[in-house]
Amino acid sequence: MSKSDDGTRLSAPVASAPIRRLRQGPVMPIGGAEDKELGSEGEVLERFLELAGGSAARIVVIPTASRVADEVGSDYQKIFGEMGASGVDVLQVEERLDANEPPALDLLGEATGIYISGGDQSRLVSLLAGTKTMEMIRMRNAEGIIVAGTSAGASILSSHMLVGGSGRAGQSGTASAKKGMVDMVAGFGLLQDMIIDQHFSQRGRMGRLLSAFAANPGLLGIGLDEDTAVEIGQDGCLEVLGSGMVTIIDGRNSTSDYFEREDGEVLTVIDSHLFVLGPGRRFDLDSRRPVPLDQA
Amino acid sequence: MSKSDDGTRLSAPVASAPIRRLRQGPVMPIGGAEDKELGSEGEVLERFLELAGGSAARIVVIPTASRVADEVGSDYQKIFGEMGASGVDVLQVEERLDANEPPALDLLGEATGIYISGGDQSRLVSLLAGTKTMEMIRMRNAEGIIVAGTSAGASILSSHMLVGGSGRAGQSGTASAKKGMVDMVAGFGLLQDMIIDQHFSQRGRMGRLLSAFAANPGLLGIGLDEDTAVEIGQDGCLEVLGSGMVTIIDGRNSTSDYFEREDGEVLTVIDSHLFVLGPGRRFDLDSRRPVPLDQA
Repeated sequence: MSKSDDGTRLSAPVASAPIRRLRQGPVMPIGGAEDKELGSEGEVLERFLELAGGSAARIVVIPTASRVADEVGSDYQKIFGEMGASGVDVLQVEERLDANEPPALDLLGEATGIYISGGDQSRLVSLLAGTKTMEMIRMRNAEGIIVAGTSAGASILSSHMLVGGSGRAGQSGTASAKKGMVDMVAGFGLLQDMIIDQHFSQRGRMGRLLSAFAANPGLLGIGLDEDTAVEIGQDGCLEVLGSGMVTIIDGRNSTSDYFEREDGEVLTVIDSHLFVLGPGRRFDLDSRRPVPLDQA
Repeated sequence: MSKSDDGTRLSAPVASAPIRRLRQGPVMPIGGAEDKELGSEGEVLERFLELAGGSAARIVVIPTASRVADEVGSDYQKIFGEMGASGVDVLQVEERLDANEPPALDLLGEATGIYISGGDQSRLVSLLAGTKTMEMIRMRNAEGIIVAGTSAGASILSSHMLVGGSGRAGQSGTASAKKGMVDMVAGFGLLQDMIIDQHFSQRGRMGRLLSAFAANPGLLGIGLDEDTAVEIGQDGCLEVLGSGMVTIIDGRNSTSDYFEREDGEVLTVIDSHLFVLGPGRRFDLDSRRPVPLDQA
């Protein structure tokens, strides 16, 4: 069920890509709607490609979240190809079985960068979570290659992800933080102790994030705007890329009434610590502190 | 230029309304799209009417923010009439002169509750700010009567209000906090030291609020969801009403790079203190602390 771009397949000597030397590769959640215009300031995809090895990169695109996976896969194949990647393959998973078979695993084994597209988060969970494909993605990231995901693909990178309660702005009454508006399920686990939400400012998702967050104050909430990403490196810091802002909520000192509320009731969450970071800013995920402005 | 509802005008003995005894009347900013269905749980408008004197209330509606002020005025006249107000008048201001003339001032002088509709904030500023109508609204509120405003009408209640940069969610690139995305102008001044934004979760306006806030860390940022209001009483506390949540950002300890950024650049604002409050919750505006959950 995999497609490969055999014409360019042999041209990249993967083992020599410098990022292979890292103990864990970078992880890059993207807030969706990343700039795909060539020649513009499409910083996010350019940085992904750079970390994947630049002109030596062999990208595997995983468009499984999309209901039009063929189309999305071809689009990214074209984009990364035009950007100069050495090879771009699309991993197609139409049923769970596909994600456990050698064609998928072989593709991932040769990748120098893995890119998970947007779409429906529940498709990622039902088709990929717990499969050998997921394990291979973890293993390859542990070996040093970059794994990026946009929109739904960003959320699944973490150990915990939100499903349901799209919290799309403009639907009055869905945007406030309400108990039970979202469920939390297990993601791929490349990142720990955080919940990543995307299209964050554009869809007014503070309420949705807080509704999950209220019951899980130990997690860090990370809201990514569109065309905005964070690059999380081996040093445990994230750096903001792209054209928007990243919202970070630290709830370690916060209190909520989550366990006293019924499903559907609006929640109260007090004493959260809020950061919004523009492009180029860095944040230390261990200390939960931004790298000071005068050092950024 | 004023319309009055003379049929019911003489029925309410205004001077005896109990709220007249307060030193300052309540102020009620509403996040827009308040529930106007009779018989439903339209808590916000019901509470407004109650504070205006219930069946003895004489409401003055100010629909000046709307480009279809006649229509909006009539709608509210009908709503408050059906809810049982003793009298409902509509104050029409088509040019600034109207706001300085006796018909408008006389109406306000007899009101037990003033309600400012939504629409375009710049119309409120250009037609009403600094007029005798504004002074009369301040004076009547100081005498004890309630002043409520919804959407644009909510924002103008404070000393500082945002104009421009609608920050409507869904317009990619407009929702992140950027320098210069909004201007701040003087509002009516019934509330001090805060910026009120509305349609907050629904339109993803965190970025817009923070962009103003970054340069004004002494102000409290208050984001009202649709069909959600805060009632601010003489005790300096606000109480949440309606069906959504209220987002409060205290920036006294926060740091931003506002003064180092150029117009249009995304801002960084760190160490803000975030509260989201559900219906019934109270927050002390002096101490900037919520009334503890177990006392609410």
